[in-house]
Amino acid sequence: MSDPSASDRSVFDQAVALEHAGGDWYHGHTHEAWANMVGPFGGSTAATMLNAILQHPKRHGDPLALTLNYAGPVADGRFDIEARPVRTNRSNQHWVLEMRQGDEVVTTATALTGLRRETWSETEAAPPEVPAPEELPRASEDRGVRWISNYDMRFVTGGWDDVAEEGSESSTTTMWIRDAQERPLDHLALTALGDSFFPRSFLRLGRPVPAGTVTLSVYYLATADELAAHGTDFVLGSVHSHRFHGNYHDESARLWSRDGTLLAVSNQLMYFKS
Amino acid sequence: MSDPSASDRSVFDQAVALEHAGGDWYHGHTHEAWANMVGPFGGSTAATMLNAILQHPKRHGDPLALTLNYAGPVADGRFDIEARPVRTNRSNQHWVLEMRQGDEVVTTATALTGLRRETWSETEAAPPEVPAPEELPRASEDRGVRWISNYDMRFVTGGWDDVAEEGSESSTTTMWIRDAQERPLDHLALTALGDSFFPRSFLRLGRPVPAGTVTLSVYYLATADELAAHGTDFVLGSVHSHRFHGNYHDESARLWSRDGTLLAVSNQLMYFKS
Repeated sequence: MSDPSASDRSVFDQAVALEHAGGDWYHGHTHEAWANMVGPFGGSTAATMLNAILQHPKRHGDPLALTLNYAGPVADGRFDIEARPVRTNRSNQHWVLEMRQGDEVVTTATALTGLRRETWSETEAAPPEVPAPEELPRASEDRGVRWISNYDMRFVTGGWDDVAEEGSESSTTTMWIRDAQERPLDHLALTALGDSFFPRSFLRLGRPVPAGTVTLSVYYLATADELAAHGTDFVLGSVHSHRFHGNYHDESARLWSRDGTLLAVSNQLMYFKS
Repeated sequence: MSDPSASDRSVFDQAVALEHAGGDWYHGHTHEAWANMVGPFGGSTAATMLNAILQHPKRHGDPLALTLNYAGPVADGRFDIEARPVRTNRSNQHWVLEMRQGDEVVTTATALTGLRRETWSETEAAPPEVPAPEELPRASEDRGVRWISNYDMRFVTGGWDDVAEEGSESSTTTMWIRDAQERPLDHLALTALGDSFFPRSFLRLGRPVPAGTVTLSVYYLATADELAAHGTDFVLGSVHSHRFHGNYHDESARLWSRDGTLLAVSNQLMYFKS
């Protein structure tokens, strides 16, 4: 990525921006444009944590996997991130991260970066058959949280309008999505997209309920050349849950490019009340 | 769990056994009955890490999620585990763990435990229609690694015999599995089952290739009462991959009880050569 002056940076690049504070420490600030119900959108927090790794002088390879644990609400204002490379192997590297505000751990993470080489390659998970994003209307930004406005979302099935009445029989949402401020796709943006679906409990129950991600894992299946080729085009996302029970449910998402390249899969566990 | 004397303990309980070494530290030893190609079976390592949390005096609630990162081979012999409760909320608790041998980090993990209450409950992911385990032969233990013998595996589709010739069109394996030494199912055993499928690359390529899990996440969707009700019965597991590319592929697994209770989902990223 280039390093433009702050005024030129997209609102996403502003949100994930970090300053090196020495050693394994970085600090940043929450961005009001990314506000969620409580604290910032989890996807921008995840991308910010990954950015500490991308900026770390000891980084070895591209992101392969990131697991974020949302330990508590991130308060508006400054945060500090420690990104420790705990083990560097020949072809990959393991990271342990914590985001702190004062004495409180607000987010923990582990991540893996690595070098990739050509191997046998095959995608088993074909994307669903959907209309092109140009044939679909841009979804309303009126969902009561500010970060939505940073995305151009176009629902195919299980949209926000289906969060109504008796609830849906299916937890699946399929949508096209890209940054509203056009910006080439990279690992940071892809990370945030992995958390960009509204909670599946809303769709099944037919109403918004208290809900929040507690843990999220993104696996970057695309190689750097594939991400670079994607450019600013829409990403096709599809997500569903397997089970809702005892205050928690899972979510499983796949993110494709328009040409059917499976860019990433993302899994999460969400808290919910009903 | 009861605390029987060592001689009465199952080979699984022996593998996951830990001694408290003060503070957040525990130590244990690899068990020869759980040997894999290199080091112990990753599922027993994951269960051992979880056991440090279960034995920790500050634990708050039952396991909700565990992410294991396999940073390097675990050598035969002693290991030390640090299990830090980094944040305790009213209804849940976040953990950061490292397994060390000497100065080397061999495994990192994060985990989440929590209290659960009754909510709306629904399972969307029905199990595949399969014969009862009693109608299927026990799979051969002859797969070149010792830990296989600790399980009674009964393949429904995508079995070890299908790792042959031209490779399979599908990466899916469905199988019944339980501990060969009957032992009531608990979070520890369920954790190990989440990693009990052979690599999907073997099935697709039609031959064993160098492969290993680099990160694994288990979400415990069943509540403690459901696990207790399961007893020693078989678990039905089904796993598939979405994409193989550039030395890595994902795997996504679901684990049900015979009555269709979705006990857990498990996701992993694997390294492979071809």
